[in-house]
Amino acid sequence: MPSTWDRFSQRMAELRDLAGAIGILTWDQETFMPKRGVAARSEQLGTLQAIAHERLTAPELGELLEKLAANKKLSGPQHAMVRSVRFDRQRAVKIPGKLVRELAERQSHAVEAWKEAREKKAFGIFSPHLDKLLAIRREMADAYGVPKGGERYDALLDGYEEGMRVKRLAPLFERLKGWLVPLVQALADAPPPRDDFLKRRYDPDKQWLFSLEILDAMGFDLDRGRQDRSAHPFTMGVDPDDVRLTIRIFEELPLSAIFSTIHEAGHGLYEQGLPREHRRTALCAAPSMGLHESQSRLWENLVGRSMPFWESFLPQMRVHFPEALANVRLRDFYAAVNRVERSPIRVEADEVTYNLHILLRFDLELAMLREELDVTDLPGVWNERMSKDLGVKPKNDGEGVLQDIHWAWGELGYFPTYTIGNLYAASLYDAAKRSIPGLEEHIRQGRLATLLAWLREKVHTPGRLLPAEEVVRSATGKGLDDGDFKAYLEGKYGTLYGVKV
Amino acid sequence: MPSTWDRFSQRMAELRDLAGAIGILTWDQETFMPKRGVAARSEQLGTLQAIAHERLTAPELGELLEKLAANKKLSGPQHAMVRSVRFDRQRAVKIPGKLVRELAERQSHAVEAWKEAREKKAFGIFSPHLDKLLAIRREMADAYGVPKGGERYDALLDGYEEGMRVKRLAPLFERLKGWLVPLVQALADAPPPRDDFLKRRYDPDKQWLFSLEILDAMGFDLDRGRQDRSAHPFTMGVDPDDVRLTIRIFEELPLSAIFSTIHEAGHGLYEQGLPREHRRTALCAAPSMGLHESQSRLWENLVGRSMPFWESFLPQMRVHFPEALANVRLRDFYAAVNRVERSPIRVEADEVTYNLHILLRFDLELAMLREELDVTDLPGVWNERMSKDLGVKPKNDGEGVLQDIHWAWGELGYFPTYTIGNLYAASLYDAAKRSIPGLEEHIRQGRLATLLAWLREKVHTPGRLLPAEEVVRSATGKGLDDGDFKAYLEGKYGTLYGVKV
Repeated sequence: MPSTWDRFSQRMAELRDLAGAIGILTWDQETFMPKRGVAARSEQLGTLQAIAHERLTAPELGELLEKLAANKKLSGPQHAMVRSVRFDRQRAVKIPGKLVRELAERQSHAVEAWKEAREKKAFGIFSPHLDKLLAIRREMADAYGVPKGGERYDALLDGYEEGMRVKRLAPLFERLKGWLVPLVQALADAPPPRDDFLKRRYDPDKQWLFSLEILDAMGFDLDRGRQDRSAHPFTMGVDPDDVRLTIRIFEELPLSAIFSTIHEAGHGLYEQGLPREHRRTALCAAPSMGLHESQSRLWENLVGRSMPFWESFLPQMRVHFPEALANVRLRDFYAAVNRVERSPIRVEADEVTYNLHILLRFDLELAMLREELDVTDLPGVWNERMSKDLGVKPKNDGEGVLQDIHWAWGELGYFPTYTIGNLYAASLYDAAKRSIPGLEEHIRQGRLATLLAWLREKVHTPGRLLPAEEVVRSATGKGLDDGDFKAYLEGKYGTLYGVKV
Repeated sequence: MPSTWDRFSQRMAELRDLAGAIGILTWDQETFMPKRGVAARSEQLGTLQAIAHERLTAPELGELLEKLAANKKLSGPQHAMVRSVRFDRQRAVKIPGKLVRELAERQSHAVEAWKEAREKKAFGIFSPHLDKLLAIRREMADAYGVPKGGERYDALLDGYEEGMRVKRLAPLFERLKGWLVPLVQALADAPPPRDDFLKRRYDPDKQWLFSLEILDAMGFDLDRGRQDRSAHPFTMGVDPDDVRLTIRIFEELPLSAIFSTIHEAGHGLYEQGLPREHRRTALCAAPSMGLHESQSRLWENLVGRSMPFWESFLPQMRVHFPEALANVRLRDFYAAVNRVERSPIRVEADEVTYNLHILLRFDLELAMLREELDVTDLPGVWNERMSKDLGVKPKNDGEGVLQDIHWAWGELGYFPTYTIGNLYAASLYDAAKRSIPGLEEHIRQGRLATLLAWLREKVHTPGRLLPAEEVVRSATGKGLDDGDFKAYLEGKYGTLYGVKV
């Protein structure tokens, strides 16, 4: 007769295996699946998600968890496993299997509709799907139950950023917006750096090769992962030994491939660095999406848009694109990759304007969940708000409300984790610089391994042993705040643009 | 309250979804999975297979099946669904979940060991894995139970070729061997046709493009499937709308890619032609592996190695390889693709020697299951028998006992279905020629659609509505026999080699 712990372990492993299978099927849908395979894929994903839900909510697992929660002899990691699975289970038991299945099937169809709508720049193709997804998500939020003193949105937020609340985010985001809008104003009004050389032709095959060199330098292990192309870049961590990134390549936008590579590799390094001794347990995972995003943004912006990074990588890039980069000086290149612009596209946005894209999405999805905003009014409100905050109006829905896949995936409450990630990233990088003597000199020499080692120890290895904010606090000495981010942006861009901020 | 039929339907659909997910994970393991992802993949497949087994053997499904089996009001297709699921379930209930899980995990590891062993040409790396797989398969055969008057092997054979028995196959195979060995002797002793032009350099990228043109001409729909590369070609039918083929390409062996394409596309067309109105039911599947193989072999050999086919495709091939094919006459090319040779490799074997490779495997796995042959003696016995039947000795285990992936997958009892497929293919093509006026003229013009339409109607559309032999009988007027195959080979090769047979 296996012990209570072994029985729990076995169930936890099974849940991880199901999540891994779902991960591969989802990744395949975005990369290699034949066009007409979508119906079967929706059904397969629906079935696997229903089974995972059924396993997680099984009364037997509940009994095992209650028994183990009362067991004083568990080790720290064992206790964290029980706590994590219990948190996930308590949420899951509140949602009927039928609703889980409905959501999964709707998601797959919505993703296909979104793709078509985006291509045709026609929100109308996607809007009935979004409407249905919203209805399901509202129903789910109500089933989770509104946390005390909170609101419906919090119930969804908990699924991405455990313990975070609108009540805490809204004032932080207001403060952020308070200094970001004038900063963007000041920078966007200054004479822009030249970036004509970034609009030349960069052979896609060579972009691909350069992206693989970046992956290699960052320490992403291609024996334990891969990189492919998809419409929207993403990372799928199936296991520390099977981590899949996707990027997109545009012939005349070379930065897109470069920064999607660095961004996704930041996620990928986190996934490859999760605690392997806790494979097939709840600890081999990130404690929050915001912490996950901190890893992608740290690499993308704090490292990938820094002068030391390009001192090392521009010469390497020139090898692939000698003509396009002829006569381009390092400082011009550095200025160009940090060009602040009023762009309508989030994933192409610079790090100064980026969070304004998020604050907009946060407010809109909050309004939709509160039933203060109708889906059909979404494109209008979106465009209006873009004008107001960013001073730019999307030319069509494709570069407006349809640009992101998240809502098609039914993800509501996810967007704020991007800004949380940016704030954590600034604090973590600040702490890394203080902890690693000569860090920027290492980067200048292309030696990115010292930074990775620090992140492995401080952020990756804990996995889900601690809550996200505790991981950050133990690495940096402080919790979620916009102070380091403000100091970073003002320092960097004040100098770069010669603007007093 | 859903009806008995609806509850059964739902369970059947779930089983198909699980099979589809397992299919994608298996395909991914052979195509795109990162090298070190194998441990996680074994676990995921183990879990999904255990869940599928648990669902299939659930007592509730048993009760539903018994109720429905007694229901006189079911339609023909409904009755066949109940019969098929009941057959599968009755087999599955006999195997404990633990054994299913053990097999699945062993398979994944064995496949990796086989890959390494094959690369290093060292059977010793693979043999302990094979030994364990054999022990599991023996245990499973005993659990299934030996059919009355039969033997252990029959219990496994039933899983691939329902109702087939050693008692029936062994004499048929002996008869086949009786006329094949002298035929091979006569042909291999005759002056061989020139094939120097098939040993020139054929650019792999152009081979890939030509293979896609062949797929297109055959009517394989790339919106409902894809083609990739893997170490060993295979077809994975996940759904009629998601069918995946793999081929392999060798720079100086152009026929390998061509015939693996035609062969796998034969399987793929069958999968795409399964009854779509019965998607997510037990009928949307082949009734036997032998019938499946008849489709690949019909296209590969009866069509793909025929003069009319190359009258159409050689000019197209010349467009890709003008230099390699300069001065190569059609009749020389036709003779070269039908060159009979004593080769140690099954998948590169011509259609005359091919079945001798199968008969050897059949006899060896029969001996291993009967515990008359020890795994460690396998390479020796293999090589000896190759010399005797085919007059050739493998240079190493890589081109000997390690050449096929099947045993690494734990598939024992599968090989004879290849020969069954060859025999069915000859009978089906003979019937097609009689039924379609001017069929060879259509092929000569590159119009392969009339043949596909006939196969769709006679073979693909029934799915698992009827047993394999009934499908063949209703299309050809006869059951499994070597008569048509003998007439075909003797006619074709007698003329080609100018040999009296």
